[in-house]
Amino acid sequence: MKISDIGGEFELIKRLTKKTKNKNIIKGIGDDAAIIKINNKYIALTTDSLVDGSHFSLNYFTPEQVGKKAVEINVSDIFAVGARPEYALISLVLPRDTNVELIEGIYRGMRQAGEKYNLEIIGGNIAHGKQLVIDVSMIGEAKKEDIKLRSDAKPDDFIFVSGDLGSSTAGLNLFLNNINGFEKLKRKHLEPEAKFYKVKPFLKYINSMIDVSDGLASEVQRICEQSRTGAVIYADNVPIKEETRQAAAVCNKNALDYALYGGEDFELVYTVSKENLNKVKGYLVGRITKERDIKIYEKGIEKIITKHGYNHFLESNK
Amino acid sequence: MKISDIGGEFELIKRLTKKTKNKNIIKGIGDDAAIIKINNKYIALTTDSLVDGSHFSLNYFTPEQVGKKAVEINVSDIFAVGARPEYALISLVLPRDTNVELIEGIYRGMRQAGEKYNLEIIGGNIAHGKQLVIDVSMIGEAKKEDIKLRSDAKPDDFIFVSGDLGSSTAGLNLFLNNINGFEKLKRKHLEPEAKFYKVKPFLKYINSMIDVSDGLASEVQRICEQSRTGAVIYADNVPIKEETRQAAAVCNKNALDYALYGGEDFELVYTVSKENLNKVKGYLVGRITKERDIKIYEKGIEKIITKHGYNHFLESNK
Repeated sequence: MKISDIGGEFELIKRLTKKTKNKNIIKGIGDDAAIIKINNKYIALTTDSLVDGSHFSLNYFTPEQVGKKAVEINVSDIFAVGARPEYALISLVLPRDTNVELIEGIYRGMRQAGEKYNLEIIGGNIAHGKQLVIDVSMIGEAKKEDIKLRSDAKPDDFIFVSGDLGSSTAGLNLFLNNINGFEKLKRKHLEPEAKFYKVKPFLKYINSMIDVSDGLASEVQRICEQSRTGAVIYADNVPIKEETRQAAAVCNKNALDYALYGGEDFELVYTVSKENLNKVKGYLVGRITKERDIKIYEKGIEKIITKHGYNHFLESNK
Repeated sequence: MKISDIGGEFELIKRLTKKTKNKNIIKGIGDDAAIIKINNKYIALTTDSLVDGSHFSLNYFTPEQVGKKAVEINVSDIFAVGARPEYALISLVLPRDTNVELIEGIYRGMRQAGEKYNLEIIGGNIAHGKQLVIDVSMIGEAKKEDIKLRSDAKPDDFIFVSGDLGSSTAGLNLFLNNINGFEKLKRKHLEPEAKFYKVKPFLKYINSMIDVSDGLASEVQRICEQSRTGAVIYADNVPIKEETRQAAAVCNKNALDYALYGGEDFELVYTVSKENLNKVKGYLVGRITKERDIKIYEKGIEKIITKHGYNHFLESNK
């Protein structure tokens, strides 16, 4: 049985997840980062990898940009649970003919990104394989009151996103179609950045949070899955920049699809109770519902999202 | 410039390593696991990966055995610094046509191995690639007095190994040459196990320690590198089982080479001061020296080991 036969990665992860027993595990599988308690400290742990050809291409990424991206996507996961990144382990799989300069460039990029966050690389591993893989594991610390989980959305919460969506996917598609110009969008794809600074000022008014690695629809579904809720997404409210729309048009694609299913924007999606609505900033893009469907309203038309709509295994351009 | 041009993985890691600033880092890059301090707790962190075709083959490994091995090699690294494994993150790279049953089998094996150590899987990631890669990150806790580093060997320390070497490499070569029989050796390759229980009773008499993932010569060099010492290895004292010698002979290989350069035995190599010699168990296989060469005495002949002798990138059978 293939992964696509069982409904994709979501279902696979469900099958693989078992209950944990250790009472120091505050949150195991199912969030941007796991959270454990060590004495009175809350420690967040996450791992995410970049695979050559899947997540980057050295045809348009510099080695430094690959390294930066590998760090930023993990930093984003640590921040997404309300923790602060501190240490990283780097596990590399290298083809035998890999150039030393390439690896040094990737490490330089990782260090440059890490410096912004006082992140230290404390260990790693090198193995050999057919394809370059950069796997980063990261740990960070959280104050108890700052911890934000996917599982804490409440029915009637409003859903916000911290910034415009679809620009990274627009950038990717410009590269894939060899289209000149649109440098700003391309840079969004090449140099993604964690966006925690945008939500930090009003963190205490947020109920649940997730970062956008796979598109708004996917992230809202993850929140709903963990919170046992549904949601309505107001598609007409999703912030999409004019240049993203133009780039999508040039590629014969739909900018809203980029935003909903494209991913890698690393903006934050968060839910807020009605009484805190005026305490937060961002773009209001939906509402959490008690009914467990996920619906999208677009120009007055209601659609129900299926799991397959944004399944990794079924996407063509990732 | 290729990795082999600069002298291999050792030199690469040296180039990539930079000084860390955070004073809570007790040990960064350069040991089996990193060690950080969180409040008054000492936390060990490590990462190690298995790549299909490099570290295992599904032609002779069951999925469960692959999963067990992925856990045991990391458990061994955590134990090698004197810590106790507690939590793991699993990062998978999967080819798109991977069977769900294969992944479930790998996870079953990881859980079976984990249960022995009360290890909990708390998170992970799934990405897509050409080749199956299982990257495990593990964290554990150590008592300050139990921490054993590669860097604490002293000149005149005696070098011990906790058990026989070369059997895993013998097993691998039997598989590669399609030779029947020798089931015990094959099992050593298929089901490696961390050996910490062997040294635990006399841990406090050990100065420095490392686990055997790449052969005795390589591990002794790592200790010397970190401790700024040299060593003499008494090749005639290296414990090699008769069946390992027989299997090597069948494959037209040298059993001592398996022991020195083969690896994956996961026995522990440790150094002990003269005054504690009668407090420890194991096989005495060498001595730490002030002079920084690494010499091997074999049947009265002295050889100096070069870096290339056991370089990953130059080995033919791994």
